Amino acid sequence: MKVAIIMGSDSDLAVMKDAAEILEQLSIDYELTIVSAHRTPKRLYEYAEKARDRGLSVIIAGAGGSAHLPGMVASITTLPVIGVPVKSRTLDGVDSLYSIVQMPPGIPVATVAINGAKNAGLLAASMLSIADKELAAKLSAYKEDLREMVTQKAEKLEKIGYEEYLNE
Amino acid sequence: MKVAIIMGSDSDLAVMKDAAEILEQLSIDYELTIVSAHRTPKRLYEYAEKARDRGLSVIIAGAGGSAHLPGMVASITTLPVIGVPVKSRTLDGVDSLYSIVQMPPGIPVATVAINGAKNAGLLAASMLSIADKELAAKLSAYKEDLREMVTQKAEKLEKIGYEEYLNE
Amino acid sequence: MKVAIIMGSDSDLAVMKDAAEILEQLSIDYELTIVSAHRTPKRLYEYAEKARDRGLSVIIAGAGGSAHLPGMVASITTLPVIGVPVKSRTLDGVDSLYSIVQMPPGIPVATVAINGAKNAGLLAASMLSIADKELAAKLSAYKEDLREMVTQKAEKLEKIGYEEYLNE
Amino acid sequence: MKVAIIMGSDSDLAVMKDAAEILEQLSIDYELTIVSAHRTPKRLYEYAEKARDRGLSVIIAGAGGSAHLPGMVASITTLPVIGVPVKSRTLDGVDSLYSIVQMPPGIPVATVAINGAKNAGLLAASMLSIADKELAAKLSAYKEDLREMVTQKAEKLEKIGYEEYLNE
Amino acid sequence: MKVAIIMGSDSDLAVMKDAAEILEQLSIDYELTIVSAHRTPKRLYEYAEKARDRGLSVIIAGAGGSAHLPGMVASITTLPVIGVPVKSRTLDGVDSLYSIVQMPPGIPVATVAINGAKNAGLLAASMLSIADKELAAKLSAYKEDLREMVTQKAEKLEKIGYEEYLNE
Amino acid sequence: MKVAIIMGSDSDLAVMKDAAEILEQLSIDYELTIVSAHRTPKRLYEYAEKARDRGLSVIIAGAGGSAHLPGMVASITTLPVIGVPVKSRTLDGVDSLYSIVQMPPGIPVATVAINGAKNAGLLAASMLSIADKELAAKLSAYKEDLREMVTQKAEKLEKIGYEEYLNE
Amino acid sequence: MKVAIIMGSDSDLAVMKDAAEILEQLSIDYELTIVSAHRTPKRLYEYAEKARDRGLSVIIAGAGGSAHLPGMVASITTLPVIGVPVKSRTLDGVDSLYSIVQMPPGIPVATVAINGAKNAGLLAASMLSIADKELAAKLSAYKEDLREMVTQKAEKLEKIGYEEYLNE
Amino acid sequence: MKVAIIMGSDSDLAVMKDAAEILEQLSIDYELTIVSAHRTPKRLYEYAEKARDRGLSVIIAGAGGSAHLPGMVASITTLPVIGVPVKSRTLDGVDSLYSIVQMPPGIPVATVAINGAKNAGLLAASMLSIADKELAAKLSAYKEDLREMVTQKAEKLEKIGYEEYLNE
Repeated sequence: MKVAIIMGSDSDLAVMKDAAEILEQLSIDYELTIVSAHRTPKRLYEYAEKARDRGLSVIIAGAGGSAHLPGMVASITTLPVIGVPVKSRTLDGVDSLYSIVQMPPGIPVATVAINGAKNAGLLAASMLSIADKELAAKLSAYKEDLREMVTQKAEKLEKIGYEEYLNE
Repeated sequence: MKVAIIMGSDSDLAVMKDAAEILEQLSIDYELTIVSAHRTPKRLYEYAEKARDRGLSVIIAGAGGSAHLPGMVASITTLPVIGVPVKSRTLDGVDSLYSIVQMPPGIPVATVAINGAKNAGLLAASMLSIADKELAAKLSAYKEDLREMVTQKAEKLEKIGYEEYLNE
Repeated sequence: MKVAIIMGSDSDLAVMKDAAEILEQLSIDYELTIVSAHRTPKRLYEYAEKARDRGLSVIIAGAGGSAHLPGMVASITTLPVIGVPVKSRTLDGVDSLYSIVQMPPGIPVATVAINGAKNAGLLAASMLSIADKELAAKLSAYKEDLREMVTQKAEKLEKIGYEEYLNE
Repeated sequence: MKVAIIMGSDSDLAVMKDAAEILEQLSIDYELTIVSAHRTPKRLYEYAEKARDRGLSVIIAGAGGSAHLPGMVASITTLPVIGVPVKSRTLDGVDSLYSIVQMPPGIPVATVAINGAKNAGLLAASMLSIADKELAAKLSAYKEDLREMVTQKAEKLEKIGYEEYLNE
Repeated sequence: MKVAIIMGSDSDLAVMKDAAEILEQLSIDYELTIVSAHRTPKRLYEYAEKARDRGLSVIIAGAGGSAHLPGMVASITTLPVIGVPVKSRTLDGVDSLYSIVQMPPGIPVATVAINGAKNAGLLAASMLSIADKELAAKLSAYKEDLREMVTQKAEKLEKIGYEEYLNE
Repeated sequence: MKVAIIMGSDSDLAVMKDAAEILEQLSIDYELTIVSAHRTPKRLYEYAEKARDRGLSVIIAGAGGSAHLPGMVASITTLPVIGVPVKSRTLDGVDSLYSIVQMPPGIPVATVAINGAKNAGLLAASMLSIADKELAAKLSAYKEDLREMVTQKAEKLEKIGYEEYLNE
Repeated sequence: MKVAIIMGSDSDLAVMKDAAEILEQLSIDYELTIVSAHRTPKRLYEYAEKARDRGLSVIIAGAGGSAHLPGMVASITTLPVIGVPVKSRTLDGVDSLYSIVQMPPGIPVATVAINGAKNAGLLAASMLSIADKELAAKLSAYKEDLREMVTQKAEKLEKIGYEEYLNE
Repeated sequence: MKVAIIMGSDSDLAVMKDAAEILEQLSIDYELTIVSAHRTPKRLYEYAEKARDRGLSVIIAGAGGSAHLPGMVASITTLPVIGVPVKSRTLDGVDSLYSIVQMPPGIPVATVAINGAKNAGLLAASMLSIADKELAAKLSAYKEDLREMVTQKAEKLEKIGYEEYLNE
């Protein structure tokens, strides 16, 4: 049970590392590498084709601009593919988002928010939790921590007021 | 192992039925109903909270405009939630897409294309296929059918030419 | 007669404080806290459900990205809900705006400009002024101050010219 | 306690009548007329200036394209102004929405969805309900009716299935 | 024969001064002041109504966001009104542009590029040049200067190459 | 004193005829023809170069998609050029609008609304009215007629109510 | 010297046939078939890899939505690839355009207008004309025909007037 | 066999130099200069008209905002014209892109990504490679280098992990 995190370029790494960090936090095994749809099309093909047999369960793929990596991987494997639209230099990530999410009938990509690599990791975890009660419990605990964190911030804000809160 | 298909309004049904059809085709058990984030918030809350314990594995949620259903379900359950942005009357589905895909860190929604309910069904299937070899084989066969269908069309087009092809 | 200012995250506070400041300026009682639609869905539910009985009159809710807080609060309470789309990191606030303003028939949210928290406070005041002549007079005075301020600037600009005006 | 429904052109009437209908349904007194910011600027000025003294409580203003009516009314009166962006012939209502919602600090307009006149009526009602318990009860009942309607549709859909539901 | 340059706020001055500068360069008489559609609606009304009788020939009006100033002035005067959409803080000036350019039939605004105040000045000059041969000659000379400047840059670039050109 | 109405293709005529009609209504002399920036670049060049000497005063140019006609004419003549962005088949006129309005410093085009040919005619008239008191009076009368028309519609609507008004 | 016209689906044929027609008109040899990036990824790979050796000179590739075909072909072959963004059902072709045109450095796609298949054919011809004087002459003649056609329409319009022209 | 690189303004040079650099790297002869559609329309006309006879094979034209240079050049020459949309100050390059790519039937421009000058150079090279085996081989080698570079980065990333990779 292993997640793959791939990206089109090492310039996407600063965004995509968030997926790795949350998987580590949840003790989910993962591998992380660069696979470029446009610069290494053969590598993409082989990577996607062997993914399931190599023991991968979910593939997280991040790319920007004409972002073809997630969709091309999804066209080859039957594993679930999560697409992370990476914010682009000129169109604010709208090009990345549209390139990834508007897949034709037959070949889905599970798209998350622009630069949403952390959520990609969590989504992979939720997919794996379908058949893994322990992981489901971890996700419940994670949700509970989020809730707790917000509640504490709310209490603090209510207590000290917005001026002091902002000055800290 | 059961998939839920929910939607914000019965006006979404003509789109969302595509998810049901593909699940039937793949012999995946599913339930289908209406849960409105805005008109039945309590029902949403209860539906999402009990989802895993009721034996659901994946939730497909479709909504249009200020589409809050998928994100709110995802905020409550730890199951994977697939969001289908339904094309809206005035903004061509961009509002639905942005409302669903731009979730904050911590709460992912697996977003598919605008009106992409069929792909939502296939994505649910690929999630379930992680731990289900038989289903993985069905998905491979489905992909092979797509390939075959395109190949046959290509052959026909090459044989009879575009004019005759278009006249048929 | 009290206004609530809530927001999805403490990162929205730098924007949402503008609502608090204008309410203070108008001597309108308010409370301010964090309620996250996605991280504290139960808290949201309870907050909205008890709002009217707790003596709240208007709820100002700010959120960014897939901004579900204002709409979900509006789905539960019958009080007027004012939504503040907070500028997002990747789509310049268009996602926040569409998520908040495109509510379905039956559940309105009074949406103001992106980052328009000050106007949210003024809008709350105008709602309260319907039945409060004193507050209506304060709003008239506020409008008059705006007029006066612009008039003085205009006079100064006409007097000293644009070059000196810009150099100051 | 009376609501005004105004619009920039009689071509907006097919949309704006939804506000009138819901106000009638809630037994809220209203007046409805045409006030064009661009074709009758003086009329606009006078209408807005006398609004509060004439006994109006809320002004609903609908307009399309360069939609200046709601903002100009809001610049003159201290009553709450609700803006309805009417779908335009060439930009799908985005121009109407931006013209209405992006008001500068100091002059708020409570903007609803594109063509969202029904919600404008409901928003006016919720504003009036702050000081009117009977109306608040009506709005609760309205919400309950919405809930009931969705629940019944959900039950029917669950019972007869999507195919029969769609064939009806 | 005099041009008016007005703007909604002194924060627009850094942009709108470009109109003044080009008018000075062409020796065209102008006045420059602040008229806010939303903060000084009466002033706007009076300014526009008296414009022609005061001897003004063209009105240049700049505004941002829900930019109503140019359209409202155009609704009152029969003089040509040039609208300058000022770049806004959250929507990159698209809101300003749509608010100004999408005027309804009957009330035109001559819209220039976002932040295009210099072109607004030149456009005013070209309008005045219809009946002013001397000014027409000045505009021809201005065009010739532009041509000359580009030609010289082209020659220099061709001569020294792009690397040296960029290093200078 | 004559206005030119030119367009890039005869497919634009159904839109551009509105400019001719309003000029006729105001008894302003005009000529109307086709000049394609892309299909007849030489013709464009000659047309623009001779425009002023041929006695033209204003040039109205309509085009769609990559709409270069208005800007190219403006680059050659010193007469005021009014650009009409014609609604395109695939991008709803946004491409036409951006191509026309976003001119660089030095070469202005007076842009009107998408498909706003009627306003182009009125804008030409307002330019000519600077030095033509009779025409200015006609424009005042035109504005008065608009006002009157709206007032009558408003009175009728107030009298017979929206239901009867819509049924007529 | 042969051009390939490929498309992702036979639903693109009604658009892409325009490329074939213009190539026929210019007596340029071509082949036309279906190659789906998502449904036949292996076929895409092989088609692109063998393209140059099979004697192809230019590849025209049309696709809609998440349009990956042109970019993926360009990632494999060194032949020039022309991309035709096909208008999509939900985003008006903006998704197709962004997916095709925003290619990363290293892998260009020559993108034409949305649904611009005819221009794709002409662009292929212009590429081939670099080394083919006869074809260059044909393209000159084609341009001349366009010019002639527009000139004739202009003359007719000038002669009979817009009313009669539109009535024909 | 020579490529022309032209741009509308020397402010585009920092972007357009990328085309020159890649052509140098591929040992393709080129010339580079400034030709402004709007400031030097005659120069544009002459440049485009003489291009083929002067021995040019491909023209790369970059421009921003209302970017008319590539389309106007394409309207005059039969050589292939590559358009580079230069990122604009206010609309993030969308205006440049739409102005260049949405050309009407008959006059194609081969559009690359916003600021995609490097790809413009590569596209020119691929066009020239149709009839130039040596250049085709160079492009293959270039593609191979890209592949190699990505592969090495991937190996390094896999070896040292994302944390160390990011810290370097």
